[in-house]
Amino acid sequence: MSDEIQFSARGDKTEVELGSNFAPLFNDDGLIVCITTDADSAEILMVAWMNAEALAETIETGIACYWSRSRKKLWRKGETSGSSQSVLEIRTDCDQDALLLRVRVANSGASCHQGYRSCFYRQVNVGEDNQVSLKFTEERVADPDKLYPNK
Amino acid sequence: MSDEIQFSARGDKTEVELGSNFAPLFNDDGLIVCITTDADSAEILMVAWMNAEALAETIETGIACYWSRSRKKLWRKGETSGSSQSVLEIRTDCDQDALLLRVRVANSGASCHQGYRSCFYRQVNVGEDNQVSLKFTEERVADPDKLYPNK
Repeated sequence: MSDEIQFSARGDKTEVELGSNFAPLFNDDGLIVCITTDADSAEILMVAWMNAEALAETIETGIACYWSRSRKKLWRKGETSGSSQSVLEIRTDCDQDALLLRVRVANSGASCHQGYRSCFYRQVNVGEDNQVSLKFTEERVADPDKLYPNK
Repeated sequence: MSDEIQFSARGDKTEVELGSNFAPLFNDDGLIVCITTDADSAEILMVAWMNAEALAETIETGIACYWSRSRKKLWRKGETSGSSQSVLEIRTDCDQDALLLRVRVANSGASCHQGYRSCFYRQVNVGEDNQVSLKFTEERVADPDKLYPNK
């Protein structure tokens, strides 16, 4: 028997939503959105995308691997910065077109290339006359220049 | 002066990632992905999409409004089920192509049409020979037939 990771074919709506087959829905670009959270604090760290290969590798290795849409290649998170993500749990949603990863982050703990723990370091604020702006609410945990010294 | 919600034009990478202008990046379909979490428990409730109109309405009203990709119309969450979402906070990520909502859910507390608090009610499990399946880990908080009686 093969021990490669295989996903199920998509069944009907009831099977997808209430069944036990894992049949992730990849979009027209072959990608599925993935939310990554800190397993301990429950903080949302980042949103990224996976193709089938990245998802299979993540399941096999227990280390988060995404698909970089800008570089168009597998993105083994932490390969450069050292901030790799050990995956404790993977979940999917009702229609199986989104994934949720619960991880522990190595090294500095910065999952954002800007040196923040989380990419969501800014809050949307609404001022007078409905002017919308962003407010920084988080402290950096790493110097972004040191995370990516050869950038 | 207009008091309609206006988003900023996209600046360069530094401005987008380290500036205070809110310049959400909508994809080719005019949509941006949105993660919705429970403001109290930090549980991830659902992943949905917004167009500019849904986002502006959410900011203006403080009640979550999404774009339904299946019905191709504004989706005022809870309009049928009563499980509306009061928005306490909106965040965006480094490259401003994702949103994070922190909400309180009215009524039954079921944000999933299947009657679960969260759409992420199943865990990906890996068995022998790398067989992957889904395991139900959550209890329903509402009867889905009662959430949508006219379905």
